[in-house]
Amino acid sequence: MSKKSAILLTPESEVRARIERVRPLIEKGRLDAAFFHYKIDYFYFSGTMQDAFLLVPLDGPPMLFVKRELKRAMQESPLEKIVPLTSLEEIRPFVKGMKRVGLQLDVMPYNMVMRYAGLLPGVEFADASPLAKEVRKKKSPFEIAIMEKAAAISKKVYGKIPELLREGMSEIELGGLLEAYAKPLGHEGLLRMRSLNYEPYTWHILSGGTGSIVSQSDSPMGGLGLSPAFPVGASRKKMRRGEPILVDFGINYHGYHMDLTRMYAIGYMPERFVRAYYVCRDIERKVLDRAVEGASASALYEYSVELAEKAGFGPYYLGYNGYKTRFLGHGIGVELSELPYLAPRHDYLLEEGMTFAVEPKMVFPRGGASGIEDTVLLEKNGYRMLSDVDDAIVIV
Amino acid sequence: MSKKSAILLTPESEVRARIERVRPLIEKGRLDAAFFHYKIDYFYFSGTMQDAFLLVPLDGPPMLFVKRELKRAMQESPLEKIVPLTSLEEIRPFVKGMKRVGLQLDVMPYNMVMRYAGLLPGVEFADASPLAKEVRKKKSPFEIAIMEKAAAISKKVYGKIPELLREGMSEIELGGLLEAYAKPLGHEGLLRMRSLNYEPYTWHILSGGTGSIVSQSDSPMGGLGLSPAFPVGASRKKMRRGEPILVDFGINYHGYHMDLTRMYAIGYMPERFVRAYYVCRDIERKVLDRAVEGASASALYEYSVELAEKAGFGPYYLGYNGYKTRFLGHGIGVELSELPYLAPRHDYLLEEGMTFAVEPKMVFPRGGASGIEDTVLLEKNGYRMLSDVDDAIVIV
Repeated sequence: MSKKSAILLTPESEVRARIERVRPLIEKGRLDAAFFHYKIDYFYFSGTMQDAFLLVPLDGPPMLFVKRELKRAMQESPLEKIVPLTSLEEIRPFVKGMKRVGLQLDVMPYNMVMRYAGLLPGVEFADASPLAKEVRKKKSPFEIAIMEKAAAISKKVYGKIPELLREGMSEIELGGLLEAYAKPLGHEGLLRMRSLNYEPYTWHILSGGTGSIVSQSDSPMGGLGLSPAFPVGASRKKMRRGEPILVDFGINYHGYHMDLTRMYAIGYMPERFVRAYYVCRDIERKVLDRAVEGASASALYEYSVELAEKAGFGPYYLGYNGYKTRFLGHGIGVELSELPYLAPRHDYLLEEGMTFAVEPKMVFPRGGASGIEDTVLLEKNGYRMLSDVDDAIVIV
Repeated sequence: MSKKSAILLTPESEVRARIERVRPLIEKGRLDAAFFHYKIDYFYFSGTMQDAFLLVPLDGPPMLFVKRELKRAMQESPLEKIVPLTSLEEIRPFVKGMKRVGLQLDVMPYNMVMRYAGLLPGVEFADASPLAKEVRKKKSPFEIAIMEKAAAISKKVYGKIPELLREGMSEIELGGLLEAYAKPLGHEGLLRMRSLNYEPYTWHILSGGTGSIVSQSDSPMGGLGLSPAFPVGASRKKMRRGEPILVDFGINYHGYHMDLTRMYAIGYMPERFVRAYYVCRDIERKVLDRAVEGASASALYEYSVELAEKAGFGPYYLGYNGYKTRFLGHGIGVELSELPYLAPRHDYLLEEGMTFAVEPKMVFPRGGASGIEDTVLLEKNGYRMLSDVDDAIVIV
């Protein structure tokens, strides 16, 4: 069936390798087993996002407990032990005798953890999420191939902008058209990030003054959004000649994200934003030249701040004074934002197989924002660009 | 500024009335105060969705603690006490002497609750979410006016379908075009429901066989979706002549949802789905005739099951055997799904001011699904339809 052949399943070798990488962390955490209830993580370890959760014991095969829908979970996941679950009680035999168990305490609601505590009296719980985050930070060739496909969708979407952008069109109108174009190519519409309250979205399109609006999100520029109930991203403001137009349109393909920012203008772009853009592009290039195995994530951030200051753009770099965001980049994969972070206090070292977005941006207190973002993969001898869109400012 | 005039702010009287309705519940719960950290709920009580949380003490004014962005929160919220928060420690003076405090334990991650426990030793915590859910279940005229605007957007979107739908178009292509059309009208793109793992989405478009596919979601029909990482809703399957095409496209306007389902076909619709549709429409009408103040929510569900069985559609009603969903309807407002539920064990009584969606649907094990959905408001003398789309099957 043609509609099925387009759907990529996670191979057994891939799932097995991921499980094998998390086991030493389960052991190191002195856990008898780890549960993964957050769908991003059990998808990573099982290949399915059906309503389920995964138990990875220190020894023995992982068990996927499926609430809905079993047949589909069995088609999608190469795991051997996939069982239906009608009541939580049914997990008891599988955790018998365990003393210390991992649960995803950073995302599981308190009430849900209490149900486990009631079911497993005397069992000590520890946070299993750091284990998943640690394993996920390095990507396999299978994952990189999916991200390359996401990048190909992104390239097509950005290629469409000059064709669609016209004076008087609202930011959200452009956002909607780009979504309508991206979805039939495989873009899944929703971006994902572990947060109680932050909902990442695709259509981050800011023009002129809306680029200077700060909002709830931990981003240099928040945007006006559509209402107080959705106060971020593209708005109904119409785009005008001579405004800097920032397009940060995220793609999610087969669960993997691609992040990219480029600048546009209608007619012309005021010099200050053009200069800011070239400074950002220069910062990106220089930072990436130092992005090698063993480089410190936080050092790359600090280096970028130095470069921005040297160029005279310190007060605007990553947000204007009082509203600065303290990260230059973020890992990217099944979550839009994950390890590694190019940010203060993230003093770990970059490793081969990491994928991350680098996004030097300038925000002025009035008039708008300007900047660039690309997604890269760290390889043995340096970075490789995954995002693949020409980095000139586009004037239509 | 024209872009601002389009933005509706929650009036002071509205916010005050909501706070005044939650206070007796705080007292009844023997709480000294309730915190609202979930953005849907603090938006409801404050008028802003900036990164913040709300403290409602039993006595004294509510306090909104804002992490980002203070100025905007002050513009959007009519509350008097809005303060910046840079460290959680800063809440200490405001909870001094309190013994029992409400936290939203159904959605707050365990780790977050533990931070509060560490900060407030000796304080007992109770779940504050039932309070918010209870207050939110009856809508004010202000809220109903917003839902009417959401219904007007929905009407336009459904009116666009006959113009867009054509043979060979994929489900997701239609979904994307409808989104692109709906967003400039004010549709916020994301639907909202409190759940660790379920992400409601706008583009639920199923054609022929994809209407019979069950998925993770608690819905009679799940759809194929785009990949194992997004296994619900519209897919890349092309729509063909003679297939039943179900469009369940949710709208979110100024934070308020509108839910609606209609049936379409290209050329013709096979008789079984036409009959199923008319049975569903008849069920909807008969159930709504009994939807009066004082009617039991669960009784309406049971009545609908009886009607489906009498019509000979029992095995397909709300899902085919083995995959039935056990609800006929759900409350709707700032969440897509909230109190009241027309479902077993929901034995409370309907009250004036409640808004809910009624969605009798039939799913056949092969070939597809058929059904209807409308959103109504309960008034003094019965229901009033909020959704406003002709209920004939549309053949293009």
